[in-house]
Amino acid sequence: MTTLSPVPTQREIVLTGDRTTGKLHLGHYVGSLKNRVQLQERYETYIMLADVQALTTHFDRPAMLAESVRQVALDYLSVGIDPEKSTIFVQSMIPEIAELTVIFSMFVTVSSLRHNPTVKHEAKERGYDDLYYGFLGYPVSQAADIAAFKASLVPAGEDQIPHIEQARKIVRRFNELYAPVLVEPEILVGERLNGLDGGSKMSKSLGNAISLDALPEEVSAQIRKAKTDPARIHKTDPGHPEICTVFGYHSIFRQEGCEEIRENCMKGRLGCAACKAMVTEAIEEVMRPVRERRELYRHREKDIDEIVMSGTAKAREAARRTMGEVRGAMGINYFNK
Amino acid sequence: MTTLSPVPTQREIVLTGDRTTGKLHLGHYVGSLKNRVQLQERYETYIMLADVQALTTHFDRPAMLAESVRQVALDYLSVGIDPEKSTIFVQSMIPEIAELTVIFSMFVTVSSLRHNPTVKHEAKERGYDDLYYGFLGYPVSQAADIAAFKASLVPAGEDQIPHIEQARKIVRRFNELYAPVLVEPEILVGERLNGLDGGSKMSKSLGNAISLDALPEEVSAQIRKAKTDPARIHKTDPGHPEICTVFGYHSIFRQEGCEEIRENCMKGRLGCAACKAMVTEAIEEVMRPVRERRELYRHREKDIDEIVMSGTAKAREAARRTMGEVRGAMGINYFNK
Repeated sequence: MTTLSPVPTQREIVLTGDRTTGKLHLGHYVGSLKNRVQLQERYETYIMLADVQALTTHFDRPAMLAESVRQVALDYLSVGIDPEKSTIFVQSMIPEIAELTVIFSMFVTVSSLRHNPTVKHEAKERGYDDLYYGFLGYPVSQAADIAAFKASLVPAGEDQIPHIEQARKIVRRFNELYAPVLVEPEILVGERLNGLDGGSKMSKSLGNAISLDALPEEVSAQIRKAKTDPARIHKTDPGHPEICTVFGYHSIFRQEGCEEIRENCMKGRLGCAACKAMVTEAIEEVMRPVRERRELYRHREKDIDEIVMSGTAKAREAARRTMGEVRGAMGINYFNK
Repeated sequence: MTTLSPVPTQREIVLTGDRTTGKLHLGHYVGSLKNRVQLQERYETYIMLADVQALTTHFDRPAMLAESVRQVALDYLSVGIDPEKSTIFVQSMIPEIAELTVIFSMFVTVSSLRHNPTVKHEAKERGYDDLYYGFLGYPVSQAADIAAFKASLVPAGEDQIPHIEQARKIVRRFNELYAPVLVEPEILVGERLNGLDGGSKMSKSLGNAISLDALPEEVSAQIRKAKTDPARIHKTDPGHPEICTVFGYHSIFRQEGCEEIRENCMKGRLGCAACKAMVTEAIEEVMRPVRERRELYRHREKDIDEIVMSGTAKAREAARRTMGEVRGAMGINYFNK
């Protein structure tokens, strides 16, 4: 008697990415990159250099895109994204994403887009009518990115929750209208890292970010200037770790010892300078291997291009398969039945 | 001494098409098809089966699209579009159009789309927020259709004037932002044909249209019911040709003799029945060769598919060339410099 070996189940798919509007920073690492490095071991992982979505805000600075595509690819390799395990690709080189964006746009109402928090936020700043059409459609485009790869999981920051919820709705509507060929994605929410100025999220445009390519002396200089508890003037004053940016970094970058730091801070036994030196070391634990990998790739521009080109070819194949199923479901595969 | 023969100048390009939402009618013939048949002799002509734009209003009836794609292709061949001279293609099979739509959408404001008369009209009926995102972007999509083929001329009805104006603006903006690789189109306005009920434009959805595949007895029955001057009860009453649908048809379908008909009508010497018989004959002058060509193609479904497939392949090549230039102009051809 023989036992059949179980049919290998297809691995679930992860889709994630970053707009190519400049180098990545520690906030990206904590919010998503860290998770991607772990997920690539278990999932089929697609990581998108989102240059088309970069255009939504940077359409008048296209030269920046070409530079950023390579910078972000280098950031990925530096944090430990393994091109043997993850497929890194360029969004603008996958026409199927544009096709799916156009198809989804037929059954998504303007009002559902207006209620998206990111769109709302921008509308508050610029006025609703002065929004660009593509910006208004950002959630549609993002749904197309995810659906083109049938991703079931998207590792992203908490600010992405409403986008993924909207992507789920769009996919569900497609499946109801035509046939259930697309996959509703879930989000895997990463941690939020506050910027060096405290309060707001770390963000390059706010100037409060530690770049992933920062040198050790830059990191320590930035941390030295990080905002702490403003009520604490002398080292012996009792601190308030719950409102301190630096204590926030301890709790994210330190595996253990946080309780002791909190207690010593509150009792005025640990001064800010010493505390910052400690957090700098914890951050360096993350930064050191990133810097080492970056050194390995830094002068191998051709190899990076090769990684991105072959990743894009592989991603294209996957998106093409999905679009074939989409056309089939809609009955618009007129000549290939 | 030798004289160099002049370099053959590239032929200018025409792009036009119809949404695949059912069979075409005489209004399409008068408004655009007639012009296309003439233009194909002098221009490089692309004619689009606009199934993606059909989705803007028919996304929940996809089965209808497959049927319409073939019906409209047959209508084209029947009116004298010559597949040796014109390239008939399917919009959804040209991903470059979707790519260009997405790119244009980055720098077109929501407000400029809201001011488009077609969008405004629909917004009045449905409310602005309940519009579909793709419907709001109809002018962007149309600009992409035209630009993908670098068309300089678009034969269309007068209702299309604002759309082509918007396409011109979008192309101009692209050329300013990046590099002047796209062509600003002009419209060639066709005549307007009123429907059988008088007043409004001939339109399938209003039920006032003479289908291009109507049989002779159907045409004459429809004309017999066409609206005329309501003030004219008896044949000897003086008529008012300027408000009579049937007289409108005379002036469009008749090369000569219109003045005599007008005079006889106004003097009560030509009754409506006789007048309608005359116009039926004039319309039949157009319909007869259309019907004959239709007979030739009617049972050659495979040949029609072949025509559309090879047209689509040719159109794809042209659109691909344009997208190559677009990527070059924007500097997003990262790996092919």
